[in-house]
Amino acid sequence: MTAPSASVPALRREHDLLGDRDVPADAYWGIHSLRATENFPITGIPISVYPQLIDALAAVKEAAARANEELGLLAKAKADVIAAACREIRAGRLHDQFVVDVIQGGAGTSTNMNANEVVANRALELLGHPKGAYEHLHPNEDVNLSQSTNDVYPTAVKVATISAAHGLLRAMAVVQDAFAAKALEFRDVLKMGRTQLQDAVPMTLGQEFSAYAVMLGEDRMRLAEAVELLHEINLGATAIGTGLNAPAGYAETARRHLADITGMPLVTAANLVEATQDCGAFVHLSGVLKRIAVKLSKSCNDLRLLSSGPRAGLNEINLPPVQAGSSIMPGKVNPVIPEVVNQVAFEVIGNDVTITMAAEAGQLQLNAFEPVILHSLAKSITSLRAACLTLAERCVEGITANTEVLRASVETSIGLVTALNPHIGYTAATEIAREALSTGRGVAELVLEKGLLPPERLAELLTPERVAGAA
Amino acid sequence: MTAPSASVPALRREHDLLGDRDVPADAYWGIHSLRATENFPITGIPISVYPQLIDALAAVKEAAARANEELGLLAKAKADVIAAACREIRAGRLHDQFVVDVIQGGAGTSTNMNANEVVANRALELLGHPKGAYEHLHPNEDVNLSQSTNDVYPTAVKVATISAAHGLLRAMAVVQDAFAAKALEFRDVLKMGRTQLQDAVPMTLGQEFSAYAVMLGEDRMRLAEAVELLHEINLGATAIGTGLNAPAGYAETARRHLADITGMPLVTAANLVEATQDCGAFVHLSGVLKRIAVKLSKSCNDLRLLSSGPRAGLNEINLPPVQAGSSIMPGKVNPVIPEVVNQVAFEVIGNDVTITMAAEAGQLQLNAFEPVILHSLAKSITSLRAACLTLAERCVEGITANTEVLRASVETSIGLVTALNPHIGYTAATEIAREALSTGRGVAELVLEKGLLPPERLAELLTPERVAGAA
Amino acid sequence: MTAPSASVPALRREHDLLGDRDVPADAYWGIHSLRATENFPITGIPISVYPQLIDALAAVKEAAARANEELGLLAKAKADVIAAACREIRAGRLHDQFVVDVIQGGAGTSTNMNANEVVANRALELLGHPKGAYEHLHPNEDVNLSQSTNDVYPTAVKVATISAAHGLLRAMAVVQDAFAAKALEFRDVLKMGRTQLQDAVPMTLGQEFSAYAVMLGEDRMRLAEAVELLHEINLGATAIGTGLNAPAGYAETARRHLADITGMPLVTAANLVEATQDCGAFVHLSGVLKRIAVKLSKSCNDLRLLSSGPRAGLNEINLPPVQAGSSIMPGKVNPVIPEVVNQVAFEVIGNDVTITMAAEAGQLQLNAFEPVILHSLAKSITSLRAACLTLAERCVEGITANTEVLRASVETSIGLVTALNPHIGYTAATEIAREALSTGRGVAELVLEKGLLPPERLAELLTPERVAGAA
Amino acid sequence: MTAPSASVPALRREHDLLGDRDVPADAYWGIHSLRATENFPITGIPISVYPQLIDALAAVKEAAARANEELGLLAKAKADVIAAACREIRAGRLHDQFVVDVIQGGAGTSTNMNANEVVANRALELLGHPKGAYEHLHPNEDVNLSQSTNDVYPTAVKVATISAAHGLLRAMAVVQDAFAAKALEFRDVLKMGRTQLQDAVPMTLGQEFSAYAVMLGEDRMRLAEAVELLHEINLGATAIGTGLNAPAGYAETARRHLADITGMPLVTAANLVEATQDCGAFVHLSGVLKRIAVKLSKSCNDLRLLSSGPRAGLNEINLPPVQAGSSIMPGKVNPVIPEVVNQVAFEVIGNDVTITMAAEAGQLQLNAFEPVILHSLAKSITSLRAACLTLAERCVEGITANTEVLRASVETSIGLVTALNPHIGYTAATEIAREALSTGRGVAELVLEKGLLPPERLAELLTPERVAGAA
Repeated sequence: MTAPSASVPALRREHDLLGDRDVPADAYWGIHSLRATENFPITGIPISVYPQLIDALAAVKEAAARANEELGLLAKAKADVIAAACREIRAGRLHDQFVVDVIQGGAGTSTNMNANEVVANRALELLGHPKGAYEHLHPNEDVNLSQSTNDVYPTAVKVATISAAHGLLRAMAVVQDAFAAKALEFRDVLKMGRTQLQDAVPMTLGQEFSAYAVMLGEDRMRLAEAVELLHEINLGATAIGTGLNAPAGYAETARRHLADITGMPLVTAANLVEATQDCGAFVHLSGVLKRIAVKLSKSCNDLRLLSSGPRAGLNEINLPPVQAGSSIMPGKVNPVIPEVVNQVAFEVIGNDVTITMAAEAGQLQLNAFEPVILHSLAKSITSLRAACLTLAERCVEGITANTEVLRASVETSIGLVTALNPHIGYTAATEIAREALSTGRGVAELVLEKGLLPPERLAELLTPERVAGAA
Repeated sequence: MTAPSASVPALRREHDLLGDRDVPADAYWGIHSLRATENFPITGIPISVYPQLIDALAAVKEAAARANEELGLLAKAKADVIAAACREIRAGRLHDQFVVDVIQGGAGTSTNMNANEVVANRALELLGHPKGAYEHLHPNEDVNLSQSTNDVYPTAVKVATISAAHGLLRAMAVVQDAFAAKALEFRDVLKMGRTQLQDAVPMTLGQEFSAYAVMLGEDRMRLAEAVELLHEINLGATAIGTGLNAPAGYAETARRHLADITGMPLVTAANLVEATQDCGAFVHLSGVLKRIAVKLSKSCNDLRLLSSGPRAGLNEINLPPVQAGSSIMPGKVNPVIPEVVNQVAFEVIGNDVTITMAAEAGQLQLNAFEPVILHSLAKSITSLRAACLTLAERCVEGITANTEVLRASVETSIGLVTALNPHIGYTAATEIAREALSTGRGVAELVLEKGLLPPERLAELLTPERVAGAA
Repeated sequence: MTAPSASVPALRREHDLLGDRDVPADAYWGIHSLRATENFPITGIPISVYPQLIDALAAVKEAAARANEELGLLAKAKADVIAAACREIRAGRLHDQFVVDVIQGGAGTSTNMNANEVVANRALELLGHPKGAYEHLHPNEDVNLSQSTNDVYPTAVKVATISAAHGLLRAMAVVQDAFAAKALEFRDVLKMGRTQLQDAVPMTLGQEFSAYAVMLGEDRMRLAEAVELLHEINLGATAIGTGLNAPAGYAETARRHLADITGMPLVTAANLVEATQDCGAFVHLSGVLKRIAVKLSKSCNDLRLLSSGPRAGLNEINLPPVQAGSSIMPGKVNPVIPEVVNQVAFEVIGNDVTITMAAEAGQLQLNAFEPVILHSLAKSITSLRAACLTLAERCVEGITANTEVLRASVETSIGLVTALNPHIGYTAATEIAREALSTGRGVAELVLEKGLLPPERLAELLTPERVAGAA
Repeated sequence: MTAPSASVPALRREHDLLGDRDVPADAYWGIHSLRATENFPITGIPISVYPQLIDALAAVKEAAARANEELGLLAKAKADVIAAACREIRAGRLHDQFVVDVIQGGAGTSTNMNANEVVANRALELLGHPKGAYEHLHPNEDVNLSQSTNDVYPTAVKVATISAAHGLLRAMAVVQDAFAAKALEFRDVLKMGRTQLQDAVPMTLGQEFSAYAVMLGEDRMRLAEAVELLHEINLGATAIGTGLNAPAGYAETARRHLADITGMPLVTAANLVEATQDCGAFVHLSGVLKRIAVKLSKSCNDLRLLSSGPRAGLNEINLPPVQAGSSIMPGKVNPVIPEVVNQVAFEVIGNDVTITMAAEAGQLQLNAFEPVILHSLAKSITSLRAACLTLAERCVEGITANTEVLRASVETSIGLVTALNPHIGYTAATEIAREALSTGRGVAELVLEKGLLPPERLAELLTPERVAGAA
């Protein structure tokens, strides 16, 4: 080989079972990653788009190295330098070296090999060797020692998902708090409640917003429970769960190191054969994410409905304007934030179907489709988190109420009759309802006009406390 | 066997590969159906719930008998009596003898055997033999001659689905016509159009209803095209498409007879191996049914929205009351018909996922999951047809418009500014919009008050023809 | 009207807001049910198909009557006779009087009114009055007193679903036990484990079956947790959660009675406005049912794969024959039981999409689409339960292993090299693998031939205990 | 503000209804794009990831400018420079200026405004003005003249999708051809056909591969039909379909220019109100993409099954190795290409649910959720195209058959009895089947041993032509 010129990128030659290939000399990834990028040119999105996955892979590799060292399989010098490389990765360096596509065949093997190669080559550098000098430290024989993709990959996915889910939990708390603050602010604002979009009975706007806050609180509890299930890992299972080729005590030792590194209370599954093939925790989590999506979407549907108008709509609340609505219609402000949340919800629900099919398609001792499960889960969590934050900060926090519109709807609505029924009697109530419907006049107005209730009594019956009831 | 008393049902003994079993002496079904009912006690719903399937099975059995006769494999006497039994079934008799569950394993074998047994036993009766005297005419050797479940069942499902789909097409035409009639009736009713639930620009209520009619018309075209694809059958393919054990010419002869019996322009698939394993036509049809569901649901969402109120809602149209809405809230009338259509739509969309998964799960030369595909398709078609009819007859046809409410929203809406923009100039328009927003007054009122347009000119700009535009 | 003859059914006239209608004189249902059956002729399946729903409605009506009595709103005589009628319903009588369609508009109003009418008319009979003599005891004013569909219906759906889910939990335990028994039976049967359908490393057949048992055990825990969430009810919320028109203390009193009647530890939701509009618990439960479906389907896919053959398949296990497989292919026995379970799983997954859409479509203070949620949940639970039982009893319990086939695959498989690697060295292992691949010979045979291991040592390495590992 | 240094990027100030904002001086996008990126930080993926959308937007803007010029609304100089900017975009320059997120609220307004801003600023540059000098050429008043997001966006999405779908059609043809070539290559390779994973009757491997080719051919026809429907556009509809603020003749003129620019036979929808709110063509297309996904996934499931082994599997065909399968199991080669295709299929099916929900959620005169529809469609098409190409080139083209294994399975299989039945008689056939099952010996061997057929006759019956049948 001649000396590289400026226009010819320097290459190094690597070897695998299929033969030789050149990779860029400055790449930390190697021949396995190269083949994977050629085999899976699917989305163009590399796995580095999910930084928590990269960090989790590095954590697993470090834990494995420490366990191998502790059990006498790996020299301390090697373990130290592997750990150092992994810490660099977790510090955010080298993420751009994780180049394989988010959708890939091989049950995550390409992701695992990408990690093995990056860790090995960075470790080699730290040892003063050139990249690719695997005779000194080998991606498979050292970095992947006592491991298999089939235990490394699910474990890393779980660690990454726990991290990501905690971010979502925090974002949900932000939007829950925003709704709760509005519930407090609007606690005295009377309005008509609706069932089946028809006028029903009075309530407060505070109660309406309180319901959104409570929903989110419940969903956070469900999400926290689902995340709990992810702490059960199969590290040490190796290929199919029998632990073949891992030394005695490896599973427990590696788990302990991984728990230390991540700060997560990880536990080893009781049945590693089951744990290696099972995607139940992912399906479950996705089901909970779907539940969250359903609730957020419902809440945003309501926000769009309540803010419809301004003239030919309900016009009960105002969403803060965050961008111009229309070039053709001056002054039009659209509910763009709830709309984007709705769309995230639709995507999360679609992702759930993808995850369901991928999980169902597992065969015998392994599910080969975990990469698309990871991809779908990570998309759902990432987008939901962003949606929650933008919903809280750019919409809910700035909502104002059209108090007069809301109160007028209570006073004119036929539904008010239902509330006054016990106080004016059924016959009078029915008569008032009939007259209101036929004349278009308001119920409160008619009740006062006919002297059925003194004004102060009517006012008392329409106090927020009274209307809100015991609920 | 002793003489049967009133309390002991008479039995006959039948035999299959697994041994002997007693079946009720008066049952037209036999041992295969019996085992199937025991093996698949899943939904409790027998296949007779889909009369078009039963009729289609009888048509296939008759066509096969005639083909076997014509090709010299079956005596004319046997073919005649098989045909006679099949005609009775298609006349609606004996449907209650089709007892196997709609969800069943075995790729439809139990349904096919149920048909073979019922046809055989009714034919035996017609010949003067007792039921079960299969030495005279055998469910497998005679009724199923030259056939396999794997060609009979998909063929019958296609014939049944074509019939059912024609019923849906007719029902869709009824609701399309109902919307079109309302479009005509409301052609002069001005209203505000809305985008993103915000006031946009004026239109007519007739245009709004016209859109629903046009949507349905397009969907009918798509459905008719999808039904067209069902005319390709695999009768004569036998087990896997190689036509093994069917005589030369059988596929074409049987197809001809089936086309005659059903009046459908059926064609034999060019590649029978492919046709035997493929569920593409079913997946495609389900996709179109889902499209119809999406449109119907969207239209019903709109109807519920437009009829919301009466006071705290849009109150633009009135749906005819078809039942009392609430025991607790007198006078409340709810949009129950659109609501039931929405729910049918949700079920159709769920059924599409079921069909998708079942189709994807086919393996090698056969899809064993066609029973749940049939069940899901039949449910979707049946429910959509019923939903269309109830929507047309109990809702759309009785809709009335609140013309004054609608017109007022045009005159007060800021969106009117957009329409007047070219006539009063951008500066004046912006000024009017600002004043309307800040004072709550109507745009038309302000325009007239400021003398920006003479009343007759404004009226002219607000004629329905003008507002509706060239669209 | 002339006197009724034998051929003219006797009728009674009832009245509602829309006018008069005749109902059959012997019907316990009344005018509201009649209109509902006319409005919703969708599936032809009446709600009585879900007996647990009917029982739950009766329990709620009884609890409400007792609460009304206790709070002084209802005379003891009326409460007693309402309770008596409800107990009859829960004893299974009168179920056929619940005639409204499972898919219905109106948020369950028709189901609630059907219950009110049946209870009222049976109570009237018990009081010695003719049916329809509502002046003595009224469906709305007495049976529905202090209630709204919007609290009665969700509460009844929850009570019914808890009951049904317990049935599913029991059925899952049956199939879990069946798998666990096989795991024990097959604990010494060696076989090759597979990943990505490729030969991997040895394991035991017992481990394979153990995984199915463990999966089901985990799913049962998840289901039990999801069912737990259903115990939170909104009885007393009335129309929108404000408790309007229910007396003080009603929610707690009615809850206490309902808990007594059902034996379920029910609690009243802390926020009744939220509880009345929220479908989270149903979405959550459906997500768990989908998880169960995914796992069952995966397990059944495996059973079909492992029993494939007998000659051109894996032929590792035999499923018990439960019906003849093919009329055209003698001796063919098909995996019909796993196939029906797969189809149930596909339907459950489709139902989950239906439920998701219905839940997302709720608006403001109510979800009007709970009937299709109930219908879908009830179908999923019912079918899964039946599928579990038929899977256990007609398939898993009768499975046998082809021990020789299984052992031969271990001895010949290249995957064995992986297990022998630590014992014969990497170089020798690679050489053996290469020779086995090129000659088609078995690994065990070559290892012995080359004297790499003494026979007794090889045998020791292939003992089930050794192969199964620490897992 | 102090003078900008090297480290402070130069800014320009822009203005909209909400106030002033600074944008980077060298950005072609402006204040509307800026706000959108802040409002929708959802996926981090900008719309430039779909180059066909960017090109389509540019084509629409050019067509609109030409129509405005032709109808006298826009000076030729402005139209020329707008067109020049649009051509640059379509030449691939400036794509990186399309920065708004693929998931966005506002019905595509942000995408449209991003296009308006980029076109305007590039046009200003071409005119010699600085970016942001909108007094010379305005994003809204000039570039967006006679347009609304509500007609521009759906039109651009359709043009983009047509282009993308043609790419998919070509990729499908590649994989279809690959399967067809293998069908020819394997036309003489005998094998056992299977139904329900059980041995059925003989066929050729060529028939098996032919089925995959035929499926793809049918799917291509369906896709071409679905793409046809996309040619109906609503350009000229403006806000809601009434064409408000577009001059007479605009719709037809703009359509003609757009057809010229794109070379596509576009037609204007007959009913623009319907066309503006309708997503039917997208739902339909997604349904067809799902159908394609189902078939591809089924075919890949089969490839994985047929290549299972090598020892403990079917081992009928070999997929070409494209990467090492396992670090822990030497020599293991996994079906990674079919696996990645399966995962793409699962994602497409999930996307279909997302699209369905988004389409169903449209309200009144507009569907605000088209951005997620575009995103989902584009993902599905892009990934399917990549999956088809990698499947053809890295898998199907390199498949080889294990002819001896395949032939042996025919000769030993009980299913052969079915084929020999007409030639040796039912009694002998049954006897042979029984003996084969009990002894484990092969059927062909037994037939020859018993002299039931002379060897040459048996060979004749097992010729590929004979086995393949008439199909």
